[in-house]
Amino acid sequence: MFISSMNPVKKNNSGGILSRIQFPEDIRMLDIGDLTLLASDIRSAIIETVSRTGGHLASSLGTVELTLAVHKVFDTPKDRVIWDVGHQAYAHKLITGRRDVFSTLRQKGGISGFPKREESPYDVFNVGHSSTSISAASGIAEARDLKKERFKVVAIIGDGSMTAGLAFEGLNWSGDRKKDLVIILNDNEMSISPNVGALSSYLNHIMTGQTANKIRKDIRNFLKTIPSIGEQVLEFSRRAEESLKALIVPGALFEDLGFTYVGPLEGHRLDHLIRNLEDVRNMEGPVLVHVITRKGKGYKFAEAEPLRFHGICPFSPETGKPAAASESPVPPSYTQVFGNTIVKLARQNPRLVAITAAMCEGTGLNAFAEEFPERFFDVGIAEQHSVTFAAGLATEGILPVVAIYSSFLQRAYDQILHDVCLQNLPVVFALDRAGFVGEDGPTHHGLFDLSYLRSIPNMVVMAPKDENELQHMLHTAVACGKPAAVRYPRGSGVGVTMDSQPFSLELGKGEVLCEGGSLAILAVGDPVHPALTAAVQLREEGIYATVVNARFVKPLDRELLLRIVRSFKKILTVEENVLTGGFGSAILEFLEENDIHGIQVKRLGIRDEFAEQATQAEQRRLYGIDEQGIAAAVRSMMNMGRSSQMEACL
Amino acid sequence: MFISSMNPVKKNNSGGILSRIQFPEDIRMLDIGDLTLLASDIRSAIIETVSRTGGHLASSLGTVELTLAVHKVFDTPKDRVIWDVGHQAYAHKLITGRRDVFSTLRQKGGISGFPKREESPYDVFNVGHSSTSISAASGIAEARDLKKERFKVVAIIGDGSMTAGLAFEGLNWSGDRKKDLVIILNDNEMSISPNVGALSSYLNHIMTGQTANKIRKDIRNFLKTIPSIGEQVLEFSRRAEESLKALIVPGALFEDLGFTYVGPLEGHRLDHLIRNLEDVRNMEGPVLVHVITRKGKGYKFAEAEPLRFHGICPFSPETGKPAAASESPVPPSYTQVFGNTIVKLARQNPRLVAITAAMCEGTGLNAFAEEFPERFFDVGIAEQHSVTFAAGLATEGILPVVAIYSSFLQRAYDQILHDVCLQNLPVVFALDRAGFVGEDGPTHHGLFDLSYLRSIPNMVVMAPKDENELQHMLHTAVACGKPAAVRYPRGSGVGVTMDSQPFSLELGKGEVLCEGGSLAILAVGDPVHPALTAAVQLREEGIYATVVNARFVKPLDRELLLRIVRSFKKILTVEENVLTGGFGSAILEFLEENDIHGIQVKRLGIRDEFAEQATQAEQRRLYGIDEQGIAAAVRSMMNMGRSSQMEACL
Repeated sequence: MFISSMNPVKKNNSGGILSRIQFPEDIRMLDIGDLTLLASDIRSAIIETVSRTGGHLASSLGTVELTLAVHKVFDTPKDRVIWDVGHQAYAHKLITGRRDVFSTLRQKGGISGFPKREESPYDVFNVGHSSTSISAASGIAEARDLKKERFKVVAIIGDGSMTAGLAFEGLNWSGDRKKDLVIILNDNEMSISPNVGALSSYLNHIMTGQTANKIRKDIRNFLKTIPSIGEQVLEFSRRAEESLKALIVPGALFEDLGFTYVGPLEGHRLDHLIRNLEDVRNMEGPVLVHVITRKGKGYKFAEAEPLRFHGICPFSPETGKPAAASESPVPPSYTQVFGNTIVKLARQNPRLVAITAAMCEGTGLNAFAEEFPERFFDVGIAEQHSVTFAAGLATEGILPVVAIYSSFLQRAYDQILHDVCLQNLPVVFALDRAGFVGEDGPTHHGLFDLSYLRSIPNMVVMAPKDENELQHMLHTAVACGKPAAVRYPRGSGVGVTMDSQPFSLELGKGEVLCEGGSLAILAVGDPVHPALTAAVQLREEGIYATVVNARFVKPLDRELLLRIVRSFKKILTVEENVLTGGFGSAILEFLEENDIHGIQVKRLGIRDEFAEQATQAEQRRLYGIDEQGIAAAVRSMMNMGRSSQMEACL
Repeated sequence: MFISSMNPVKKNNSGGILSRIQFPEDIRMLDIGDLTLLASDIRSAIIETVSRTGGHLASSLGTVELTLAVHKVFDTPKDRVIWDVGHQAYAHKLITGRRDVFSTLRQKGGISGFPKREESPYDVFNVGHSSTSISAASGIAEARDLKKERFKVVAIIGDGSMTAGLAFEGLNWSGDRKKDLVIILNDNEMSISPNVGALSSYLNHIMTGQTANKIRKDIRNFLKTIPSIGEQVLEFSRRAEESLKALIVPGALFEDLGFTYVGPLEGHRLDHLIRNLEDVRNMEGPVLVHVITRKGKGYKFAEAEPLRFHGICPFSPETGKPAAASESPVPPSYTQVFGNTIVKLARQNPRLVAITAAMCEGTGLNAFAEEFPERFFDVGIAEQHSVTFAAGLATEGILPVVAIYSSFLQRAYDQILHDVCLQNLPVVFALDRAGFVGEDGPTHHGLFDLSYLRSIPNMVVMAPKDENELQHMLHTAVACGKPAAVRYPRGSGVGVTMDSQPFSLELGKGEVLCEGGSLAILAVGDPVHPALTAAVQLREEGIYATVVNARFVKPLDRELLLRIVRSFKKILTVEENVLTGGFGSAILEFLEENDIHGIQVKRLGIRDEFAEQATQAEQRRLYGIDEQGIAAAVRSMMNMGRSSQMEACL
């Protein structure tokens, strides 16, 4: 037995109640008092670690009690708990065998910031993108019944994730299948940005609960006042109350979709949660449990600014301020440059509108939203809709800029192809977080966009070498009259001087940055500057590289490429994208299409595997696309070339 | 004025009322009697044409009255009508300027089987995939308001399409935005297969409408019987009725999502439709009009078998039977072979389950569904869910086979990547209709799958050369323990002898079909047999080709490829996929990765454009991947090679 009263809340959790918790079985015997202390310990541990590692703070603080209640009531890991998105699962990690490695959160070789099956049997389904949990849980529930096993399946999904079509598809399916399944709707009136959509308004109505409760009470009182006029009225009264109960209870929408609705529950009251979840555990069929939580709960800075503390860099736990602002002025981030530029472009072009899928702040659209509220659309987590909606706008002569993370745009692949490109509509895609994203790891890298966008007809695909080029590429995309994507990395720009105004680059034209006679390096996007510095370094070794900033992955600069292949027999391509079907492949295809032979091409990029979490610098080092990697590849080509070129002529 | 009584229904529409209709303005002055005759003429014209061209018959027959009513009431093309999927828009085409070219439906150079902006200003949004209309319409509505124009926006969407997440995303968004927008829910209790899901059950409840109506009546009657006991009761009575009306009306679910619900309307009664749509036209904000129609209406064979008459090949209008069955026994279709094989495999492996997204018949799963009902899942039009649901099943050791059309799998790109491949889960994707689909045209071609699947780590990608290999590849996919896709074409197999049982092929191994010393042809999938026949033909010209059936696009057969490049300096690749990032690119990448130079590679496949409708044979001819195209490419390589090989060694 734990004697919790001897262990008050403390920052240093070495002696706290958390220090004696390894697995959920350890918490099942705790009483409410102990659990409350444990919740406090967990919050301290999360704040302490995330203040050092960065991560998703506010969501995880909001689900501490819910996590404890779920693991207390359900028999995990036999019962399957599936976290949606997974950025709220830090408490879950702390009490499922990973307390001692929790400090490695999001570090290279450390534990993931998201549930991961490889880490623990308590992590049932890998996740990172939103809205997958209901479908996954319904699959698991069907599997259970096929195998004739007995366990509970619990999906925990935020209200923000419910706006995505995938969540609805799962809801629509599982409500109808009537399998035993619990969906816990974690309602904090927020996804990442404040939530939007009709469902959100609906949940609000439920939460305040005023209308329905009042009507219910009115009717009950009224029925009491009616003088009994025999059997008929009594019978009617009974039937009416029943009907009304069925029709006026909060959550009728979910009941209409086949779920038993339970709630709304107060998500930070452990006793209330546990008692109600115990009831739910004994219910059969699909149940939707509506839990109200507060994002950032228990940490005043996060409660005050849940948006800033959603995904946050290292900060001071005492002040909530970012840790150690660097002395020198940091170059603006690509996100900021996008945000500034799009405002400038909107001032020039009244037809320009901006669309985000729940990532107003993340994509840098705040200033735009403020200056042009009527031209700003946050559609919530609904990437498919964001793109088809943009296509609709474009058919009417409006110029939509869809600002989205590269990884999340994967959700809208068919909409890009079928709704935008097939109609050749001028929709601009501003892909933030393209390439490596660092600590968020494999679910969040934007490493596929060059491949999947490039293969779609009519598409223009660009990647800027630095933040100044980003503004010009945005101008280009907006002006080009075709579907156009600009993809740029997470983080700070290179620190170049910004031109005062964005202007259009020539479509499909690259630029030669430096000339040398030994070989040509064709780079695109972020690797251009490392390629340049590598070239400088190599000169000291007597290797003189021509460095080309390709700018366009599609269309390629035909003229420039033909000039390059007339001058060089060795070409190195560099990109921060998977090698399969990426920019380097486009160069190989170009050579084939133009019947150009005898050129030795080497491609640098991401080999065919999912890249693990680490810092962006570590990831670039690992995959050989930083300065050192590029220099090494050049050296290797220069050595190898002589013999293999010979061989080619045998 | 049209004197319609003189023109009874007739097969030959040259003299019918339809012959005098060019544009919707021509129908706006017609009375109900004329419109009824027109509806009949339109049905005859549709049946007559589709019986020759093939096409989507049942859906278009079901919306004749709805089409007339919409064009009579709304001021098209100023008012925008957006058809979802678009396969129900034949009547719309007939009365919007395309009557005289209607006979070219789905033919090369003819009008499309779907709405297409290039054809007519009445076609507002190109379509082919389902569930895009609400998002597109909401974009158009926002554009209207931004431009301060005034027109109505009407989306017409089937109940089957409503199950897709994209439709929900659109609904959730537009219900909340409160913009002026009409959504007509065309409820025929069917998508392509009979419909599934909670929403469908819900719609059924509305349609029968018994419960709600009864309660409403009961309460009203009851309230009348209560002796007046003063102000209080009267006031309550008024309020209660109001509340009840709000809560018990059919369509409360849509009202909860912010729509004014109108319906259910009888979709084949013109007077009723027109009267109600006139009311709707004068309403503001988002309105959902629920219309009940019957698929195949007015053609007895289609009413009896709406599924068979959904998308149908040429048939006899008199008997409804397929036109002129060929004399010789046609080889089984790839679809049939898939259907047979999956049943065999399921008998051997009790963990195998099959999933379809509303395409049970289309993907050939009928026999499976019959023999293994508890292992068969039709999730409705919900491709995203189908894949994540499969991933959930796979985490529990179940072996899901997702049978889906290549083009529709595009909807689930992120789910394949994020939910299946990132977890390396053994989910099998059986991609029917890969490559050219013929008359359905650019929205339905499955020409991108090799590119978008190949770039995802962990994925196995196969394409069989014929129907016998298909069964073995399915066995291979099921046995390989990894995410695996088998893609195969629409239509009949090659006619080869089928092995009695499917067995596993060695993973990542191709086969040499014939040997020659001149060059190597590496083909995959459907083009393998044409490559073989081309090789035979070329022998007569003194060109001796080695023909390789690659079988695997990923992983490639490293050993075989190394052997090939040791023997040949010329390689021709052939695939029925876009050239960008496809199989040929994989070969180029292989050469680069292995530092192999001096090989002249030529790739045949689909160049960077959307391929238009035609027959599959015409499309293959046009893109040079049939026997003649392959032979021509070989000849060209053999001529060109000599000079360019020289050049490479300069």
